[in-house]
Order: sequence, then C-alpha cells, then structure tokens
Amino acid sequence: MKLHWSPRSPYVRKVMIVAYEAGLVDRIERMRSVAAMRKPNPAIMRDNPLSKIPTLVLDDGRVLFDSAVICEYLDSLHARTPLFPKSGQTRWDALRWHALGDGLLDALILWRNEREREPGQRLQDLMEAFELKTRAALAVLDRETQPLEAAPFGIGHIAIVCALGYLDFRFAGFDWRSGHQQIAAWFDKQSQRPSVQNTAPVDDQ
Amino acid sequence: MKLHWSPRSPYVRKVMIVAYEAGLVDRIERMRSVAAMRKPNPAIMRDNPLSKIPTLVLDDGRVLFDSAVICEYLDSLHARTPLFPKSGQTRWDALRWHALGDGLLDALILWRNEREREPGQRLQDLMEAFELKTRAALAVLDRETQPLEAAPFGIGHIAIVCALGYLDFRFAGFDWRSGHQQIAAWFDKQSQRPSVQNTAPVDDQ
Repeated sequence: MKLHWSPRSPYVRKVMIVAYEAGLVDRIERMRSVAAMRKPNPAIMRDNPLSKIPTLVLDDGRVLFDSAVICEYLDSLHARTPLFPKSGQTRWDALRWHALGDGLLDALILWRNEREREPGQRLQDLMEAFELKTRAALAVLDRETQPLEAAPFGIGHIAIVCALGYLDFRFAGFDWRSGHQQIAAWFDKQSQRPSVQNTAPVDDQ
Repeated sequence: MKLHWSPRSPYVRKVMIVAYEAGLVDRIERMRSVAAMRKPNPAIMRDNPLSKIPTLVLDDGRVLFDSAVICEYLDSLHARTPLFPKSGQTRWDALRWHALGDGLLDALILWRNEREREPGQRLQDLMEAFELKTRAALAVLDRETQPLEAAPFGIGHIAIVCALGYLDFRFAGFDWRSGHQQIAAWFDKQSQRPSVQNTAPVDDQ
C-alpha cells in the first residue's frame, strides 16, 4: 500500500497511529505529499480530486480516503483488538469521540489558516469563534476523561490525541492545559504509547 | 430523538434522507438551529461544543454527532436494506463515495464563505483552488456514474446527492452539469426519490 503522507498532518497521524497499533507499518510505503489548502497538488489529485491527505493507494490500484475510511480499512486487516468497536454503545461512544477530535482539528486548521492571513484580511469574529469552540471542546473532554480512560483504546482516543498534539504543535502559546488538568494528564499518559511517540509531528522543511 | 436541524444544511439533509429511507422521520423532533461559522450558537453548544449541525439528542440524553455518526446510528434502528453496507468491498466503495461527497461539500462551504467576504479580504488563489477541486471531483463522479448506479442506494449516494444539490442551491451560476452529463443524469434520477424530494434545501429566512 502507498500512503500520501506528511509528518505534519494530524489526519495522517491518525492513520499512522492505527498502523502502529495494528502492526501494519511495514506494509505501508509513505509518499511525502504536500497538501496546502491554497495550492492543489496534482500528484495527490491523481488519486484524490480533493487534494487532501491521507490518501491510500491499495496494491490493486484502488484508492481510499478520507482518514476515517483509511483507519477503518486498516483496522479490518489485523487480528488484534479492534480500534473500531463493532457495535453497540461502545461503538457510538468511540465514533462520537472520533467526531469530537476530528471536529476540533477541523476548527484548529481553519483557525490557523485565518491567523496566518495578512492582518487586514483576517476576520476577528471568526478567530474568536474558533477559540470559543476550542475551549468548549476542551471543557467537554476534561469532563469526559473518566469514561475515556474506562473505554478500550480506540479510534476516538486516537483522534483526540491527534487534536491535542496539534494544539502543542501549532498553538504553543495557547496553553490548552490550563483549566483542563484531567484531559491534560490523560494526554500525557497516552503520549507514552509507542504508536503516539513514533508519530509525533515534525516540521520537516 | 431531537435533532438540531436546518432546511439549508446539506449535512443535516444527509441525516434526513437516511431518516426517510429508514422510515424513522416520525421519531425525530426537529429543532430549528442556526449554525453559522462566525457565530457560535449556545443552544447547539450545550449539546455539541463545536456548534455544528446536525447534532442528535437521544431520548436518554446522550448526544451524537457528526452527520456520519448520526446516519450510521439511524441505520442501526431499522430492518430495511442497510444504507451502510456491513463489510467487504461494497462497504469501502460506499465509505469512499461518502468521503468524496462530504469532502466536496466541505470545499463548497469554504468556497462560499470566501466568496462572501468583503472584496479586499478574499484570497483569489484559495477560491481558484476550491473551483479546481470541485471540477476534479465532478470529473471523478462523472467517470464513476456506472459503478454508482450498479451499487445499492446507500450512504455514498446520499452524500453525493447532497453535495450536487448544494451546488444547485448555492452555486446556481456555476453550471456544474456542463461537461458532466453522466453524473448530472444520475442526479436527476436520484432527485425523484421521495427521500430526496422531501429534503430539498430551502432558504427559510
């Protein structure tokens, strides 16, 4: 399998954490691919018209995206504990946490894009909206730390780890831990998993 | 069940099409909720910190989001043909089409937001990137019309219908059908399904 990959992308990181947890890393060939919102990348677009990463090209030429689909596909290829619970309440909990982590990431990416515009082209109310939603999401995560700890490590945990890791990577001045000690302690614990350590984001150029 | 709902949102429309297909519409109480990216809505945020719709509040108080999770949950509540194929290649096909439809929608929403800024605050290259990705996605859909027709109607078809319907709703001047006759004819055929007719987008205020 070939993966349009970047060491900076938190969505790619989800896929790589799943690959480590599932013992599949050696089967994935990484292709360094740059997906910038303002610059469509023809090399990615040959496989995904939306020019987004991760995009996975299977050995038979079929293509899978987005990150959620790739993660679930990789989860179908191994016999360890599933990262997507098969059914019932544990599945809805995992998928809701996944959506919360991914939704937080979506807001953070747009917030960062806005912050990096020329000063006269920034929308103040939009940036304040992203900050408010980020703080609200952190408050929910802080309240839900106990159920997160009680649930088996899975796709919800992975998305949340990637979102909090992205806060450290791109919002170093934001101090997201302040006022959210429960989820901050949970994050520090998760950060010791090999799959999380091996995928820490890096600015490679 | 109570649904944070709007007749304008293409993501809410996905949920409502699933509800009609599954025979569950009567069990869903709609709460008209306005989710504007620049104006967080406290009424939504009590249930979803990201202030996005659809958000579904279950009878026992538990909450589900985003649209993909709600659609899959509703699909677990009925005994008709499943809209999420259970496993195998039909599932990956359906989930990839779902990601393609949703990803096209994500690009269209951001394109429209950019287009509605003050002229001096718009990024020309960003708008051109969204147009290029939209055209590339339409070309892929046009090439894949036959497999779409051959597959049982499901979550992939639903997401694509909502994305193309959104082009008609918010990009009336774009003429997306030109050069994409296959997928345009497919869309016209899908538009005759009661679930699609009953959920046509409306500007209600």
